[in-house]
Amino acid sequence: MPETTRDSVGLVTPQVAHFDDPLPLVCGKTLPAYDLVYETYGTLNQDRSNAVLICHALSGHHHAAGYHDEADRKPGWWDAHIGPGKSIDTDRFFVISLNNLGGCHGSTGPSSINPDTGRRWGPDFPMVTVCDWVDSQVRLADRLGISRFAAVVGGSLGGMQVLQWSLAYPERIANAVVIAATPKLSAQNIAFNEVARQAIRSDTDFHDGHYADHETLPRRGLKLARMVGHITYLSEDAMGSKFGRDLRSEDLNFGFDVEFQVESYLRYQGDAFSTSFDANTYLLMTKALDYFDPASSHQGDLAKALAPAECPFLVVSFSTDWRFPPSRSKELVNALIRAGKSVSYANIDSPHGHDAFLMPEPRYQAIFAGFMRRVADDLKLPSRQEADHAL
Amino acid sequence: MPETTRDSVGLVTPQVAHFDDPLPLVCGKTLPAYDLVYETYGTLNQDRSNAVLICHALSGHHHAAGYHDEADRKPGWWDAHIGPGKSIDTDRFFVISLNNLGGCHGSTGPSSINPDTGRRWGPDFPMVTVCDWVDSQVRLADRLGISRFAAVVGGSLGGMQVLQWSLAYPERIANAVVIAATPKLSAQNIAFNEVARQAIRSDTDFHDGHYADHETLPRRGLKLARMVGHITYLSEDAMGSKFGRDLRSEDLNFGFDVEFQVESYLRYQGDAFSTSFDANTYLLMTKALDYFDPASSHQGDLAKALAPAECPFLVVSFSTDWRFPPSRSKELVNALIRAGKSVSYANIDSPHGHDAFLMPEPRYQAIFAGFMRRVADDLKLPSRQEADHAL
Repeated sequence: MPETTRDSVGLVTPQVAHFDDPLPLVCGKTLPAYDLVYETYGTLNQDRSNAVLICHALSGHHHAAGYHDEADRKPGWWDAHIGPGKSIDTDRFFVISLNNLGGCHGSTGPSSINPDTGRRWGPDFPMVTVCDWVDSQVRLADRLGISRFAAVVGGSLGGMQVLQWSLAYPERIANAVVIAATPKLSAQNIAFNEVARQAIRSDTDFHDGHYADHETLPRRGLKLARMVGHITYLSEDAMGSKFGRDLRSEDLNFGFDVEFQVESYLRYQGDAFSTSFDANTYLLMTKALDYFDPASSHQGDLAKALAPAECPFLVVSFSTDWRFPPSRSKELVNALIRAGKSVSYANIDSPHGHDAFLMPEPRYQAIFAGFMRRVADDLKLPSRQEADHAL
Repeated sequence: MPETTRDSVGLVTPQVAHFDDPLPLVCGKTLPAYDLVYETYGTLNQDRSNAVLICHALSGHHHAAGYHDEADRKPGWWDAHIGPGKSIDTDRFFVISLNNLGGCHGSTGPSSINPDTGRRWGPDFPMVTVCDWVDSQVRLADRLGISRFAAVVGGSLGGMQVLQWSLAYPERIANAVVIAATPKLSAQNIAFNEVARQAIRSDTDFHDGHYADHETLPRRGLKLARMVGHITYLSEDAMGSKFGRDLRSEDLNFGFDVEFQVESYLRYQGDAFSTSFDANTYLLMTKALDYFDPASSHQGDLAKALAPAECPFLVVSFSTDWRFPPSRSKELVNALIRAGKSVSYANIDSPHGHDAFLMPEPRYQAIFAGFMRRVADDLKLPSRQEADHAL
């Protein structure tokens, strides 16, 4: 943990909420009981009006800000935007960040024990969708006594959850922040997910998902899946300026060892991920992405699908994001406008592709922080200065 | 073979040229002897001035036009552009199309017998580069008595060979046609190639390239490599309009069987390729792509690298090609202009992405045919009508 922590939430400890109420899922199955692991940052105010929910993306988890340990070198994945004085200002907001069902960071998922069998769920863990996640998040909100979020916020797959909140629970979300997301995957998006799934499922160590019983991991498949993913997270320009055609050593080796720096980077990222993330979880997360399509039950009319939403929206895209390009955010914005909703939209010039949503771009921060400041002001949440003054 | 063959070269028979002269390679090794398999279309004229060389792309081969058998349902891969009255008019030109060294369609490659060991080359086949291919093509030209090509023509990796011809053998190429190509791969291009290579090399059936000795094939890896390749060959729009989010059957199955049409398409393409193409060849071809960079020996100055070229160029790109986008062709065009060369450039509006170079787009055909007509006219090659009239 770096010494300067003035704008950090500091040390945080994950908590676990256990639920015994069975959760009916979109796929038709029911999850009998489950845990959700989560973290909170900031303080819940007396009338419980200052809560903000963070929804995570494909390989994300509950550890969004701060540090778990003094020895941690890196903070949570969205520390750039969550903390005292940051876009999601923990001096004003009480922030909840959870690991979704099906995850592999503490919430019930394929690596958990199936109470019916006493063995790991593995590939028998039921298919969970964005709708199911939001339903489970509502229960977590109930548990924490939060009847309405000041805002629900997420990037990428997280943005889909925000959208679903606004449609399924309009009375429980005061503001929606949808970043680098899309109202549905394109054929190309599905195609990339399918390559990742085939890579994992065709790994001979996958054993139809029962790799744990075989005391192995489908490392090769998960590595490939992550390598493909990384290419789609970075813009062509960002890859070009980061690696170009730089060689690892002075000369070409005319073989299949690493020659170009970009190969070394991808192999390293893939190897690291292949032992730290669960393959069955990865498969579930890609399917949740594929399935999300709120317009599908309205003959493809997104504006009609958005009718139930009541809250104002902030939609943000990034100029070089080719995974969910600005055009996909505009599709959502235009449908929101057609549906008569309140929406602010910003397309941020950034060289960083899809990954830009994780980063501290000044214009992105200004717009994000500005929107959240308005949310806090509307709710009359005191600022740090006001709170200090009141003491 | 369809009945109407007026614009087809009809039945063709591949031929083999054997070379006993050792070929020194860029990697430092020497190929002691080798075969090149090739086809020809049209008739070589008396002064041998009407020959056109076709250079193939990553998974291409010598069978570019016509049919091998009356029962063939599909013609060669570039039949849209080679034939009587087509862009490369076989009434006027004598066309040569070969399978490159390292290939798996008859020319010497990893599947061939290494004369030193009496066993298949397999992974010991030396690394071949674009420069080596062009050197071997020059020997084929010598064998056929062609001292100067009216044009050398190629798309994608084929376009790189055309460029290399213009630099290494300027006196032997009268015109260069470089389609959907790039003067060098970007970091993203190399990254996609690296994913393909890792997929193949990490397949447990790859056996370090000695899969033939194990009487198996790295099908899973080659399938994944082809699936990734296919995504990069098609534009996002083309995939969207071809497949969208269409389902294979009426309902979602909430499992990992094929649900979306695009998954079905990719799996089919991958499966077909995985048993028809040689994995060691695929690895070599991707490395040849990675290595090509004529500017690298000129401190990255492409215009300087292009100095030796003497012929006029036609450069063609396609608006939705994101594998080698129009910007990469413009990079080449601008360098050619800076180097004082004669260059025509067209960016063709097409929804078909990189694959557009294989297709019969009217504006593409008009520009390609127009350039080739000028080539033929300059060489005073008689047109079909003139030839008929002279009889």
